[in-house]
Amino acid sequence: MLNGEKKIARPFRWAMVGGGRTAGVGYKHRTGALRDNTAFQLVAGAFDIDPVRGEDFGVNVGVDESRCYPDYKTMFTEEVKREDGIEAVSIATPNGTHYEITKAALEAGLHVVCEKPLFFTVAEAQEIKELAEEKGKIVGVTYGFSGNQMMLQMRAMVEQGKIGDIRIVELQYTHGFNATDKADAISEAQKWRVDPKIAGPSFVLGDLSTHTYYMSQLIMPNMKISKLLCDRQSIVGSRAPLEDNAFVLMHYENGAVGRLWTSSVDAGCMDGHRIRIVGSKASLEWWDSKPNELRYEVQGEPAQTLIRAMPYLDESCLADERLGALHQEGLSDAWANIYLKFAVAMDAKNRGDEETLKNLVYPDINAGLEGIRWIENCVRSADAGAAWVEFE
Amino acid sequence: MLNGEKKIARPFRWAMVGGGRTAGVGYKHRTGALRDNTAFQLVAGAFDIDPVRGEDFGVNVGVDESRCYPDYKTMFTEEVKREDGIEAVSIATPNGTHYEITKAALEAGLHVVCEKPLFFTVAEAQEIKELAEEKGKIVGVTYGFSGNQMMLQMRAMVEQGKIGDIRIVELQYTHGFNATDKADAISEAQKWRVDPKIAGPSFVLGDLSTHTYYMSQLIMPNMKISKLLCDRQSIVGSRAPLEDNAFVLMHYENGAVGRLWTSSVDAGCMDGHRIRIVGSKASLEWWDSKPNELRYEVQGEPAQTLIRAMPYLDESCLADERLGALHQEGLSDAWANIYLKFAVAMDAKNRGDEETLKNLVYPDINAGLEGIRWIENCVRSADAGAAWVEFE
Amino acid sequence: MLNGEKKIARPFRWAMVGGGRTAGVGYKHRTGALRDNTAFQLVAGAFDIDPVRGEDFGVNVGVDESRCYPDYKTMFTEEVKREDGIEAVSIATPNGTHYEITKAALEAGLHVVCEKPLFFTVAEAQEIKELAEEKGKIVGVTYGFSGNQMMLQMRAMVEQGKIGDIRIVELQYTHGFNATDKADAISEAQKWRVDPKIAGPSFVLGDLSTHTYYMSQLIMPNMKISKLLCDRQSIVGSRAPLEDNAFVLMHYENGAVGRLWTSSVDAGCMDGHRIRIVGSKASLEWWDSKPNELRYEVQGEPAQTLIRAMPYLDESCLADERLGALHQEGLSDAWANIYLKFAVAMDAKNRGDEETLKNLVYPDINAGLEGIRWIENCVRSADAGAAWVEFE
Amino acid sequence: MLNGEKKIARPFRWAMVGGGRTAGVGYKHRTGALRDNTAFQLVAGAFDIDPVRGEDFGVNVGVDESRCYPDYKTMFTEEVKREDGIEAVSIATPNGTHYEITKAALEAGLHVVCEKPLFFTVAEAQEIKELAEEKGKIVGVTYGFSGNQMMLQMRAMVEQGKIGDIRIVELQYTHGFNATDKADAISEAQKWRVDPKIAGPSFVLGDLSTHTYYMSQLIMPNMKISKLLCDRQSIVGSRAPLEDNAFVLMHYENGAVGRLWTSSVDAGCMDGHRIRIVGSKASLEWWDSKPNELRYEVQGEPAQTLIRAMPYLDESCLADERLGALHQEGLSDAWANIYLKFAVAMDAKNRGDEETLKNLVYPDINAGLEGIRWIENCVRSADAGAAWVEFE
Repeated sequence: MLNGEKKIARPFRWAMVGGGRTAGVGYKHRTGALRDNTAFQLVAGAFDIDPVRGEDFGVNVGVDESRCYPDYKTMFTEEVKREDGIEAVSIATPNGTHYEITKAALEAGLHVVCEKPLFFTVAEAQEIKELAEEKGKIVGVTYGFSGNQMMLQMRAMVEQGKIGDIRIVELQYTHGFNATDKADAISEAQKWRVDPKIAGPSFVLGDLSTHTYYMSQLIMPNMKISKLLCDRQSIVGSRAPLEDNAFVLMHYENGAVGRLWTSSVDAGCMDGHRIRIVGSKASLEWWDSKPNELRYEVQGEPAQTLIRAMPYLDESCLADERLGALHQEGLSDAWANIYLKFAVAMDAKNRGDEETLKNLVYPDINAGLEGIRWIENCVRSADAGAAWVEFE
Repeated sequence: MLNGEKKIARPFRWAMVGGGRTAGVGYKHRTGALRDNTAFQLVAGAFDIDPVRGEDFGVNVGVDESRCYPDYKTMFTEEVKREDGIEAVSIATPNGTHYEITKAALEAGLHVVCEKPLFFTVAEAQEIKELAEEKGKIVGVTYGFSGNQMMLQMRAMVEQGKIGDIRIVELQYTHGFNATDKADAISEAQKWRVDPKIAGPSFVLGDLSTHTYYMSQLIMPNMKISKLLCDRQSIVGSRAPLEDNAFVLMHYENGAVGRLWTSSVDAGCMDGHRIRIVGSKASLEWWDSKPNELRYEVQGEPAQTLIRAMPYLDESCLADERLGALHQEGLSDAWANIYLKFAVAMDAKNRGDEETLKNLVYPDINAGLEGIRWIENCVRSADAGAAWVEFE
Repeated sequence: MLNGEKKIARPFRWAMVGGGRTAGVGYKHRTGALRDNTAFQLVAGAFDIDPVRGEDFGVNVGVDESRCYPDYKTMFTEEVKREDGIEAVSIATPNGTHYEITKAALEAGLHVVCEKPLFFTVAEAQEIKELAEEKGKIVGVTYGFSGNQMMLQMRAMVEQGKIGDIRIVELQYTHGFNATDKADAISEAQKWRVDPKIAGPSFVLGDLSTHTYYMSQLIMPNMKISKLLCDRQSIVGSRAPLEDNAFVLMHYENGAVGRLWTSSVDAGCMDGHRIRIVGSKASLEWWDSKPNELRYEVQGEPAQTLIRAMPYLDESCLADERLGALHQEGLSDAWANIYLKFAVAMDAKNRGDEETLKNLVYPDINAGLEGIRWIENCVRSADAGAAWVEFE
Repeated sequence: MLNGEKKIARPFRWAMVGGGRTAGVGYKHRTGALRDNTAFQLVAGAFDIDPVRGEDFGVNVGVDESRCYPDYKTMFTEEVKREDGIEAVSIATPNGTHYEITKAALEAGLHVVCEKPLFFTVAEAQEIKELAEEKGKIVGVTYGFSGNQMMLQMRAMVEQGKIGDIRIVELQYTHGFNATDKADAISEAQKWRVDPKIAGPSFVLGDLSTHTYYMSQLIMPNMKISKLLCDRQSIVGSRAPLEDNAFVLMHYENGAVGRLWTSSVDAGCMDGHRIRIVGSKASLEWWDSKPNELRYEVQGEPAQTLIRAMPYLDESCLADERLGALHQEGLSDAWANIYLKFAVAMDAKNRGDEETLKNLVYPDINAGLEGIRWIENCVRSADAGAAWVEFE
């Protein structure tokens, strides 16, 4: 049970690149990182592409005016000169800038937290992974939903054989907010997402499905895809070549099969983020719209609904408990969980505590890299006419 | 609103082939056909492959001993001699016998109702279709779930443009009752389903997904598949070459895309029969586990739950209403609805009333034929290595 | 498992009083009684206060014109003369006529099935109970919802101690169809319900809550109310003195407490028929809007959802199974269940088989009498200013 | 939309009394107050009745060792001497100490936030209210659930006449965590709750139902109870005279009626915190277990499900939005909302900004006082034998 007491000697001095007033995701980072003030303290930022607005915003969230920077380069240059300079930075900018900012941050000696999808290519991710290792730094990826502790419950149940051998994996992350192209033209947050130069080789595959794909890996760490097929569409034609809808079929090395559907044109859908893992004995199902519940269905027995915070849950799940039974946790709690783990990982890395790092389940650089690999394989299949491709 | 008052001059004299004591589906036929005694009367039967058991059963359900026959051939031969002989017959036998019995029935001058999947090949279905036309008889197919009047509500809403242009079709019919192979060995009803000689070229594609595929056609009569891909598995290996799990991807002629998942190894799943139609403005969703509800989700508006029997529903839906608001209808009511339409169709055919036949929405020989076509295309794709195939 | 095979030597010759074309409830009786043609056969009727309409209707549901009677008195008089005269009659008329018709039927030597609330006073019910005993006849009461076999599952689980000692009883039957007084003026079915001369001393207490109260007795046969308090209102003032909303508090002899809410002004409510039984260890909950499910919540364990037809259910529940797992049953199946039990009871009574009668769980004259007692006590409390009254 | 930007010139210097390591509720206060570091900063505390444990805890949550005090008296005395002394204090101690600590805090010139139920008597609350006015200080009460912005949506819809005239109020807050007396003996948090000397005149009425009662007042500010009846029980006998279950019936001045059920022996119940408001045209329903949804049921129309963050919601509701559509908020967000309003109220009070205070909807001293009045009336009725009492 987490109650805000410190897990590390002192909070990291932390900054943000992007995530200012006009970016919805910025608040998720801050509310995650600053949850208890014992993991991170926000001391600097290059919050906005508009430096004046960025400074105004920074001051409003408590950053000293002198440490509100016009851009990330200046911030890294200036902060490195300070004795109390930043130690970690979160990157909440459009996809196309992740690679260069992460690289610069590592070279400036900073731990990094970056938005998903991490970069455009696996090659970039491998390069950054090596750089991070060389620099002794952590790169975390904000698969925010994955901080929901029911993921750890599912992971534990899978590992304990509670569902038997995994046979079928059913993943979905769909919504309908882009059923029309209206926002493509007017929303800053949406405009770049359908521009391949900034968004990269995919829209919803990267924007939505990498979350769900990572969660599936977290739950079933031993399941490896052997081949897949991706059929992607630009249902709203102006989005071509980027997809706003995609179906993926998967074959796993153990013989299991799977599906994923991701879409932002699933009109009216408000509960389309779901995971179902079917085993030989039972299934597990979780819906993001009911984040405090887990459905455990043993064939031939009454279906069970497991509820967050209850003592019958696995200790790995209960370890991330904050509010207690009957009290609903939500996405802000999930973000707080992963940011706390980022801090613990950074601290362990600084101390050379490899044992802690090995046992910590959180979205690290490998999770980011695997997300890119997922997109690359999907795009390769889709571009080959929705053909089966070996998963590379 | 239906209240049992007659729709046709007098009930048809009706018999069954199969559907005896050991066959669960037989009761669904009888409870559907005999619902109000104004559509059909059960007067004869060859209920069982075991003639003694069949006669005992027949007498117990009210058939005169003298009209409980040892097999369908005898029944057709003997009944034709009677002035009050049977006029219609329902076939509730294993798949492999449907074709020959249907043919014999038509040749004996009977209207036919047959279980799905109708036959093994489209060629057989076309032959029977021609024979039925020649004989002036109806062949109905018991896609029982399709009798739920919410299907007609969805059809009406689609036609009225309530969801805009159809973009995505999401179909599922899964359960977990065959998660192990236990029943394959001991259950008469299950044994033949995994024997290709009797079941035909598919297990769950025919046994489950033809229902859902037909319902999708009923809801969206103008949507034609242009190509599809089917990835099928024998998750329980002993079932090979028949599949107990299959994923299908579909492309429609209008540019829409779709998916279907069918499985009998979806362990623990008791709510896996679902239809979601996504349009450019809104979506419709129906779950067989909540058969009295329909979800109507307009993008950007509060989700609506439409409930059976309410006055805001379309008149085509309300026409099949039986119990009224607040009163749950179930599968037996759905079967009663389709059997009533079979009777109306048979009567219209007898009277040469083509107008009635044209407007009646029910699972006719074409629906049966299209179900076989569906299976054929799926199997062809699956056998080609889960490759895309043109829908033929 | 029921499949339509006969439970009694031959079906009873059966008639209806009321329940014609304009009465929604009539169809529920017929669809229940005639479900398999092995319990009852409809051979006569005085279906309508309008004899012409009644005859037309009767012929349409298959009754011989000569046995469509203008009124119940004529029917009883004429049928008694026939060798193949009726043996049982169902009464589906407004409340105010139940007593006289039931009495006449018993005196004509008929078994009776009557709508709820049975009569106006406990005294009437006791008189009829004695008359039925004297005549050796059954009087059944159509608490139709109670035929849902999950009631028997709850009964079995309570008896087996699965929830521990009963502590709290939570009953509700509310809807909103009378939120305005519109139907009071124009609907034949509603007009008399708010007329105390015809409806009796209550509206929703009798029309709705007697169902739920009986179901609670069926589930917990040993629980006796010691005192209660009823606070009733005419929310739509024109209905005074009859209530369209009532709250009841109950104390049971074993120290348990309970509540009931009944209303027809619960605007928009379509899922307001619910039963929750709280024990010292666990609770059971059933919603009529999800009639195939039962929620079993053991304190400190994952909540269980029991689903109709599954082998883990009690054999008493499974005995009334018709359609099998995954196949939704609804209210028509529940009515078929109770009508089958009426037939079994009538047959046992005719044969003097007291053993069968003792073990048969169905809504008999006592259930009808207790429903009236329930209303009487509620009304007495309400009329005393919503005061506590001893349950008499 | 809230994104952490400051609403007041600078955060208040804030301390806690109680809420240390062993008190679950303490974290809710801290996570609420410190959400964005722009409303409150935790600078001091008397966190624990065990001073050593309290200091250790305080240091762990970032409080300077020198400002971790052994008790509230010392804290108030010492802090008042500092130039940077605390300006506001939250009280998260057992009920019996609320009055004296609140009084001391106000006399020390502090704004106060206090747990519910605020005090034991209305007289105490009125005295404190006057003291607070005299001192120019705010007293807020942590009805934490009420911070869910869907409460404001309901309030807006009620005010805009969306449900018509209010007719029925249905309130429930039940769980089963005290189904046995096990925790009474061993849990520090539970032991005092069943001790009238510390808990005051009620257990669940104060501990649970005051939340729900306040929420009902927030939603329907114009609805005044005229009389009520409370039937309370000590289902687990050792808890007498305090109740672990209570039923309340209410009559409102406008003629509406209502009910409330509160219980901690509702075995297995994990979704028992619900509010339903029935109007002449429609109903609104909210369940704490689905905190991001609101059910809007217009009689005769499809039921609507309103979902948090959607643009169709009222601006008063959207003003408290943090995470955006599709992203679940939970109880920690609700607490953050009310703590932000506490800060805004304190700041307005300091600045003499009565306009802001007048328009701010949050649980103030009046809300605390009304909660006590609620308990007093319930207890008075219960102790009179569950008799109707005028609401005073």
